[in-house]
Amino acid sequence: MTGRDGGADLAPLSPFDPVVILIRPQLAENIGTTARAMANGGLFHLRIVAPRDGWPQERAWYASSGADRILDAATVHETVDDAVADLHRVFATCPRPRHIIKPLMTARGAAAELRTTAQQGLRSGILFGPERTGLDNEDMARADTLIRYPLNPQFMSLNLAQAVLVMAYEWYLTEDTTPEQHFMTNETHVATKGELENFNAHLLRELDACGFLRNEQKKPGMIRNLRHLFTRGQVTEQELRTLHGVVRELSHNRRSKQP
Amino acid sequence: MTGRDGGADLAPLSPFDPVVILIRPQLAENIGTTARAMANGGLFHLRIVAPRDGWPQERAWYASSGADRILDAATVHETVDDAVADLHRVFATCPRPRHIIKPLMTARGAAAELRTTAQQGLRSGILFGPERTGLDNEDMARADTLIRYPLNPQFMSLNLAQAVLVMAYEWYLTEDTTPEQHFMTNETHVATKGELENFNAHLLRELDACGFLRNEQKKPGMIRNLRHLFTRGQVTEQELRTLHGVVRELSHNRRSKQP
Repeated sequence: MTGRDGGADLAPLSPFDPVVILIRPQLAENIGTTARAMANGGLFHLRIVAPRDGWPQERAWYASSGADRILDAATVHETVDDAVADLHRVFATCPRPRHIIKPLMTARGAAAELRTTAQQGLRSGILFGPERTGLDNEDMARADTLIRYPLNPQFMSLNLAQAVLVMAYEWYLTEDTTPEQHFMTNETHVATKGELENFNAHLLRELDACGFLRNEQKKPGMIRNLRHLFTRGQVTEQELRTLHGVVRELSHNRRSKQP
Repeated sequence: MTGRDGGADLAPLSPFDPVVILIRPQLAENIGTTARAMANGGLFHLRIVAPRDGWPQERAWYASSGADRILDAATVHETVDDAVADLHRVFATCPRPRHIIKPLMTARGAAAELRTTAQQGLRSGILFGPERTGLDNEDMARADTLIRYPLNPQFMSLNLAQAVLVMAYEWYLTEDTTPEQHFMTNETHVATKGELENFNAHLLRELDACGFLRNEQKKPGMIRNLRHLFTRGQVTEQELRTLHGVVRELSHNRRSKQP
């Protein structure tokens, strides 16, 4: 499959980005969906240890939704020792670690460590076990650190690609600077207070004219409430033009209906 | 399917936990894997708007890996308006928002907002679009806030269950207090400095006896390096006993081989 075209245009590889290592995976589809999950989070190095059905398997490429380049470059290894021999730091995912004396990290904590390791110019890898059984004790003895995702303890079972996705997502977040909230306005912009007040004045003029504000005692409060509403909504300049039109048309129709 | 047994014993429901709302899902398998992803993160309310192949579909239950209770309790709605009518706050997942004037949040930011909303006793929901096309503009106009996951911009395509998993995982993390790193020792414990020094003394005694420390000038540095090594590794009391045995046996064999 090497050199096969059609893969998405993925980001450049760094030799220090973590290697995803699938240990004795059973289904080729899961190797393909793993590649897809890796691409989602910007992980590109894949190693496969003793795949049950051999390698390559066309079905993996079909399942990868275009992450061909990852599968094209994947290497196959007979043993875990061979797959980790050139790595400086190895993590192992493990939902239920028992009788093991080892540091245990969350996905988020491990992702930060993986990033630090890469920044130090050291190569790291993450072991994922077979679909049905997970990593065995011998596999885990090859890892410096275990990773357990914080998930509902009564329902921890993830499929292989989902387990890879969580790590890939956390890896991506370690360098992501997207603000948690952002107000999208595209080609328009949030109205200035002057533009907003201009609309408020238009609205109040028409409300006065139609008698909506006839209760002089309640009038200041009603005006203030309307001002609160329109100020809270982050109205854009474009939306204000629409609102001006709405008020104009409503009051025009009212006037034309008057005798 | 209501009342069907065999579901995993899931956590109790809160009426203020977010509702996952699948809009026009195409494949029953994806509804099942969505239920599984919800259970992973402790989300239990599922609504399905206009499923292409009708509902219920046995294949959803097969694909849910035991998240039966979520599927049993899922409700079906003809329109988005009907599915969100009783909710106070609606989020919509949207990988590529265009020409929309709306707050845009990360998965993490949105999860925090969902938690805050629940804490205020308000009901919220998250819209997920059909597999091939995602949410359309009319669907998104029903949402207060859009969610875009930070992911590799050159490879954003997630399948439905993976998209749900990321939100479910972030939702779970908003109340998770697992430390990022924890040293698992199970039935044993990290050795005290006294226990460690006791082993160091044993090792140095034997190294002295076999002549390994014969270079008097280098001796203090070599001893210090060994002390650094064993101190850095968080050796447990159980492992120290093993190491005492290793040193004893190695030196015993050496002695018995001497003429």
